[in-house]
Amino acid sequence: MTLLTDIPAYMARVGNAARAASTVMAASSTRARNEALTTLARLLRAEAPQLAADNTRDLDAARAAGLAGPMVDRLKLTPQVIETVAEGCEQIAAMPDPIGEITGVKRRPSGIAVGQMRVPLGVFGMIYESRPNVTIEAASLAIKSGNAAILRGGSEAIHSNLALWRLVQRALAQAGLPPEAVQLIETTDRAAVGRLIAMPESVDVIIPRGGKSLIERISAEAKVPVIKHLDGNCHVYVDAEVDLDLAVTVTDNAKTQKYSPCNAAESLLVHERQAAPFLARIGAVFAAKGVEMRADDQAAAILRDVPGAKVVPATEADWSEEYLAPVISVKIVANLDEAIAHVNRYGSHHTDAILTTNHPHAMRFLREVDSASVMVNASTRFADGFEYGLGAEIGISTDKFHARGPVGLEGLTSMKWVVLGNGEVRG
Amino acid sequence: MTLLTDIPAYMARVGNAARAASTVMAASSTRARNEALTTLARLLRAEAPQLAADNTRDLDAARAAGLAGPMVDRLKLTPQVIETVAEGCEQIAAMPDPIGEITGVKRRPSGIAVGQMRVPLGVFGMIYESRPNVTIEAASLAIKSGNAAILRGGSEAIHSNLALWRLVQRALAQAGLPPEAVQLIETTDRAAVGRLIAMPESVDVIIPRGGKSLIERISAEAKVPVIKHLDGNCHVYVDAEVDLDLAVTVTDNAKTQKYSPCNAAESLLVHERQAAPFLARIGAVFAAKGVEMRADDQAAAILRDVPGAKVVPATEADWSEEYLAPVISVKIVANLDEAIAHVNRYGSHHTDAILTTNHPHAMRFLREVDSASVMVNASTRFADGFEYGLGAEIGISTDKFHARGPVGLEGLTSMKWVVLGNGEVRG
Repeated sequence: MTLLTDIPAYMARVGNAARAASTVMAASSTRARNEALTTLARLLRAEAPQLAADNTRDLDAARAAGLAGPMVDRLKLTPQVIETVAEGCEQIAAMPDPIGEITGVKRRPSGIAVGQMRVPLGVFGMIYESRPNVTIEAASLAIKSGNAAILRGGSEAIHSNLALWRLVQRALAQAGLPPEAVQLIETTDRAAVGRLIAMPESVDVIIPRGGKSLIERISAEAKVPVIKHLDGNCHVYVDAEVDLDLAVTVTDNAKTQKYSPCNAAESLLVHERQAAPFLARIGAVFAAKGVEMRADDQAAAILRDVPGAKVVPATEADWSEEYLAPVISVKIVANLDEAIAHVNRYGSHHTDAILTTNHPHAMRFLREVDSASVMVNASTRFADGFEYGLGAEIGISTDKFHARGPVGLEGLTSMKWVVLGNGEVRG
Repeated sequence: MTLLTDIPAYMARVGNAARAASTVMAASSTRARNEALTTLARLLRAEAPQLAADNTRDLDAARAAGLAGPMVDRLKLTPQVIETVAEGCEQIAAMPDPIGEITGVKRRPSGIAVGQMRVPLGVFGMIYESRPNVTIEAASLAIKSGNAAILRGGSEAIHSNLALWRLVQRALAQAGLPPEAVQLIETTDRAAVGRLIAMPESVDVIIPRGGKSLIERISAEAKVPVIKHLDGNCHVYVDAEVDLDLAVTVTDNAKTQKYSPCNAAESLLVHERQAAPFLARIGAVFAAKGVEMRADDQAAAILRDVPGAKVVPATEADWSEEYLAPVISVKIVANLDEAIAHVNRYGSHHTDAILTTNHPHAMRFLREVDSASVMVNASTRFADGFEYGLGAEIGISTDKFHARGPVGLEGLTSMKWVVLGNGEVRG
């Protein structure tokens, strides 16, 4: 690692290089960018042994520092992880080029034709933790979308990230693209992050991936836009008219298929008409899987009759909680209005689903629930860039501005206006 | 005007009311919102005499305070101004409803169908100066787009704005919509602006209209996204291959049709091959109209031969200047690359045009010039929401994030994901 003492000067140099490279990337050919991606895939496979050696330095340091087993596991660049990121590069190479697309060209009464062209945003900064494969994911999305990127990975993965980044630079150079299109911050000094998020002249958007406190801190201090993902307090609402089998299957999947993802359900709302039959069935499922139910009085009265059910009285705080664990809050509602109002008040505007056979109710829920993803009769676990067909996911946004929900390549672009004339002037 | 002493409490009340109203507006029918707009048009015409009386209070105060004539003129609610804003309301009512549109629904391998639905952003804050008709423009855009708005007009127009706002509230109530969907800040205390831009819980985006220093201050201090319009240093580049008649006509229009708009040309780049013939002709036009030319050495040598031409040596600062006056900077470039590099370096990323008959050059300029509007063979003066067919314009953005260039109703919306299933779960 380079010895870096003057962080402001170093970051200014990185920022200037990124800005210069972004201009070249924006004008680069589809073929060159795709070639960089397929070359990167090839290099990743060819250099797997060296990557493993560099990775070992991080793993040894992590174990020496007493990191917990799961944390060490997340650092590992196993042959399988390397194959997966290599395949990811090839998949992104095979996707259509988002850049240069011109849409909606219409001729105006003045004679000019007006449309919009998709262009790269410019430079994005990505701040992430532990898993080194994010280095390749972010680099490949930058290359495909014609942006430049400045990456800041976790300090515990620094040797792995540097090794991966060297391959990215080789791939860019071999494709005739500027190696500075993807830069990794070579110091683990935290001051570098403070600079990265405060260089509007060099960075157009920051994408943090990590815990809520990290993201809140970055959002509060950033001088550029942030595509941020805060918590996912996702709801499933079981309506008065519903297929009970479907409701049990989907609710079970939304809560228990995995507990840790942000799109797992954390709160269950049930219309009072279905409370008795539905809670008896889902209560038994949750009891069998050891899912604790934080229930309001009405729901608790029903759930306590379910053998083996772990029922705890819900407090006001439970309605806002993202458990990421085998815990779910349960509330009975009198009608659709109450369900929508509850979701909009306590939810995190991430992903919420209605389970219903009533079409007007489905349409009202879709329209009125103010969340990035709203679903009818499907598991909240589908809120994901790959499941949505984006082909790649740079992150999930809980904001409304610019990009909302799963963010793919398009989230790294903007639309500029193009005007095609024949000498028209304004009168 | 209400006596207001506790600004934080007042603004919190305004913000809460706006947030509550935004939920109702988002769920309101197209018919109700259009009815509010046509009612507003009717009220504006019916109450024109009373509006004139309230307007007189502002005009008298302005004259008493010694405001310059043009400033007083901008405050005037003449019958013609009132008719224009009333017609604007009717035009917006006649536009398609942007809200609820669902696009790109595709079925995925999992069985779910995924698309996007256009929904209101929520609450926008609008900060503007002198002209009271902006009150109606902003209110009508808020109503049509299903948003709530908090308006902060100039203190010199407070009585006119209050009178107009009362009509907006009557129109909303008559259409069965919440009057709090459009609120005007009833105090001229500047502390209210400081609160307005720092209430992310109540305001989703701020749209300032006014001088550059106002907008820079708001952008620096805002805790919510800002759709901001900074300066317009617009370029016209006359390429090596060009129709000289067209180039003279378009360049003349871009510079002289009006000097004050942000989309007027401020800088002229000319390929060296066309320098002699083109500058002789445009120099004569500018000489006749009294337009001063700040020219580099090469251009000055040609322009000084034009009878009556006002030629001044350009300094480095001239390349970045937004004159908004009968002044233009003129530079000779060796090729298209130099032209594009100059525009990207010195321009303000607002609007730039190439005049050329060479197709590859036109395409490269469109793609590589990093501006909100890029044009071929058309006057920069076309960069305008109405000219682009947006039907209405809330502002012009010089940002890349979210909305770029002229911002219409769509800039006040976001796209959320909708998922339609039949009980699908994730495996």
